Amino acid sequence: MKKRSLPSGELGLIEQIQRDFATNSSAVKLGIGDDCAILRPPAGCEVLVTTDFTLEGRHFRRDAHPPESVGHRCLARGLSDLAAMGATPLAAFLSLALPSSMLTKAEGRTWIAKFFSGLRALAELHSVPLAGGDTSESPGGKNALILADIVLIGYAPKGKALRRSGAFPGDALYVTGQLGGAAAELAGMLGRRKRIASVKTTEDHPHMFPEPRLDVAEALLRRGVATACIDISDGLSTDLAHLCRASGVNAEIEQEALPIHPLAARLGAKSALHAALHGGEDYELLFTAPASARMPTSLAGVPLTRIGTLKARRTSQPLMTLLVPDSGPEELKQGGWEHFAKPSRNAKKKAR
Amino acid sequence: MKKRSLPSGELGLIEQIQRDFATNSSAVKLGIGDDCAILRPPAGCEVLVTTDFTLEGRHFRRDAHPPESVGHRCLARGLSDLAAMGATPLAAFLSLALPSSMLTKAEGRTWIAKFFSGLRALAELHSVPLAGGDTSESPGGKNALILADIVLIGYAPKGKALRRSGAFPGDALYVTGQLGGAAAELAGMLGRRKRIASVKTTEDHPHMFPEPRLDVAEALLRRGVATACIDISDGLSTDLAHLCRASGVNAEIEQEALPIHPLAARLGAKSALHAALHGGEDYELLFTAPASARMPTSLAGVPLTRIGTLKARRTSQPLMTLLVPDSGPEELKQGGWEHFAKPSRNAKKKAR
Repeated sequence: MKKRSLPSGELGLIEQIQRDFATNSSAVKLGIGDDCAILRPPAGCEVLVTTDFTLEGRHFRRDAHPPESVGHRCLARGLSDLAAMGATPLAAFLSLALPSSMLTKAEGRTWIAKFFSGLRALAELHSVPLAGGDTSESPGGKNALILADIVLIGYAPKGKALRRSGAFPGDALYVTGQLGGAAAELAGMLGRRKRIASVKTTEDHPHMFPEPRLDVAEALLRRGVATACIDISDGLSTDLAHLCRASGVNAEIEQEALPIHPLAARLGAKSALHAALHGGEDYELLFTAPASARMPTSLAGVPLTRIGTLKARRTSQPLMTLLVPDSGPEELKQGGWEHFAKPSRNAKKKAR
Repeated sequence: MKKRSLPSGELGLIEQIQRDFATNSSAVKLGIGDDCAILRPPAGCEVLVTTDFTLEGRHFRRDAHPPESVGHRCLARGLSDLAAMGATPLAAFLSLALPSSMLTKAEGRTWIAKFFSGLRALAELHSVPLAGGDTSESPGGKNALILADIVLIGYAPKGKALRRSGAFPGDALYVTGQLGGAAAELAGMLGRRKRIASVKTTEDHPHMFPEPRLDVAEALLRRGVATACIDISDGLSTDLAHLCRASGVNAEIEQEALPIHPLAARLGAKSALHAALHGGEDYELLFTAPASARMPTSLAGVPLTRIGTLKARRTSQPLMTLLVPDSGPEELKQGGWEHFAKPSRNAKKKAR
C-alpha cells in the first residue's frame, strides 16, 4: 500500500487504515507505507497465497448486507482458503476501490468505517495483520461500485500443506460444522423488505459472518491424519467434485449423515437437502482420512461428521453418488456456483 | 485460483490460463488449481508482497489502449514495486473480473487473448510464473467493466531490501532511464481519433509498455550502495516527496540535470519539464547513495543520472527545491496523481 498525495482523499484513507491496523506481528518486518510489505515466514515453512474478489452486486449487495458483514466475508473468503490447506495466516493485503462519493458523504464514510470494523474484528480473532494493499477510486461515474480483492499469505511446514489431490479410494469423507446454513440465511435476507441495519452478534450468522475453520485445519495438520482437504465455498457438490477429480476417485455420500444447519432445516426437508448439497459459502471444510483412522467427534470445538466414502475411479460410474434412504443410490450432480455460467443457472444466487 | 464448475465459462478461462502459463519454476511447488498456491522462497530471504489494481476507465481505456498494453502494464505495475525494493520476483497472482459478454463474443475473446499475450510476454522476460488468482464476472450488467488486481510476491536477502526511509542528508539523488516519456506518449494516444489496433514492438513505448527496472534494482542491491529507493509511478515530484518524508530529509533537484525523454522533449521545453517532474507512470527508479560512492553511468544497460542532492530537514525550507538555471531556487510542489483527489485535479489524467 503506497502513500500518495493528499490527506483529503486516498492518503487519508490509507493513514486511517494504517492507524487502525497497527501491527506488532514479528512476521511483518515492514507493513503499510512502502512499495512492498516485507514478511518473514518461519524457517522451514512454505508460503501459501490466495486471492479472492469481493465485488458489489456479485458477492454482496449494498442494500442487503450490513457493511460489517461485507468486511468480515471479504477476509473470511481468504482465511478459509488457507484453512483448506491447513495453513496458518501470516498477513492479509486488501485492494479496495470505492466510489468517490463515498469518501465525501457521511453515509459513505460510515459504510467504510463499518466495513473495516467487520474486517478488523475477524482479523484480530485470528491475529492476522493487514500489511498492505492498494486503494483506488472505482470507475464508472454514477454507476461506480465497491470493489475489493483480498490476498492472504500463510505458511505451513514444508510438504505438509493439505491438497485436494491426496485422497485414496476407501478413505472416509468428513465435513466440519453444519451445511446449508449460509444459503438459508441468504434466502431469508433477500426475502426481507428492509436492509438489516445492525447486527448484535456475529455468532449464528452462517451467511453474514461465516467462521473460517483455521483452528480445525491446524489441528488436522498436527494430527497428520487428513489425506486431502478443500473448503466448501461453492457448495458441497461442486467442491466434492473438485476433490474427486484432483484425487482421481469417485465418492459416495450418505444423505442421512449430512449435518443440516438448523436454519436450513426450517426450510423443509427438500429445500434443506438442496441447501446442504448445493448452497455455497458455508466455508466448512471437506476432508478425507483413511477409514481406519480414529477421528474425534469434534476438533477445536467444531463437530466433525463422517458423510461418506471414496471409491476407486470408474468412468462407468457417476463421479459422485448420493445414497438416499428407502430409495437407493442416485447420481449427485454439481449444483454449485460458477461465475461465468449462463445467467439463468445462477439467477437465484445473485448476491453471492 | 480455484477450479469451479462448467467448462463453458470461468473454468474454461482458468484452464486456458493454466495451459498458457504452465510453469516449471522450482519456487512454485503448487500453482493454479487448488485453494492456495504453494511457494518456496530461497532460504535466508524475506518475502515481499505488493498488490496493484488495473481498472478500466481508471488505469486504462478500452478505446485507447491496445489489450496487449493493458496486460503488460498490469504486470509492470507490480514488478516495478518489487524493483523499487531491490527484490527478485517469485510469482504473480491475477484477480480478473470480466463482463460476461466478453466471454461469449469473438471480439471479447480476442481482447482477453491479447491481454494475456501482453502479460505473458513480460512475465517470460522476467521469468515470473503466474501461480494463481481469482476470476469473476464483473458486476454492473451493461455497465460492467474489466477489473484486474495483480499481486507480486518477491524475495530479497534478509534485511537488504531497499526502503524509502534509508536516505541521509548529503546523499546524491539518481534516476534510471529518462523521464516524462509515459505522460508524453499518453497525451499523444488520447489526442488520436482512432484506437491503436496493433503495436509492432513493445520497445520505445514508455506509456504502453513500460520496462520495470528489475535488473538495475538487483544490481544496486548486489553493490550495496543505495541508501533508499522508490519507483516513479506517481510522478517524480510525488514520489520524491514520499522518499523525503520517509527519510526525514529535504531535496534539491537540478532542473538542467533531468534526463528528458525524447517523446517529452518534442512537446516543447515547458511541457517537457512538466511531464518529467509530474507525469506519472515512467516506472523508473529514484534512488539515493552517499555522494562519495562511485556510481557508473549505466547499470544493467540502463543510464543512471544524478539529478540532485538531499539536505537536512528544515521545516523553514521547502521539502523539495528545484534549481532553475538563470533564475535560482524555486519550491517544487507535488503534482502527481492521487486517486481520491478532487476530479478537477486529476481530470487530465483520467486514462491512468
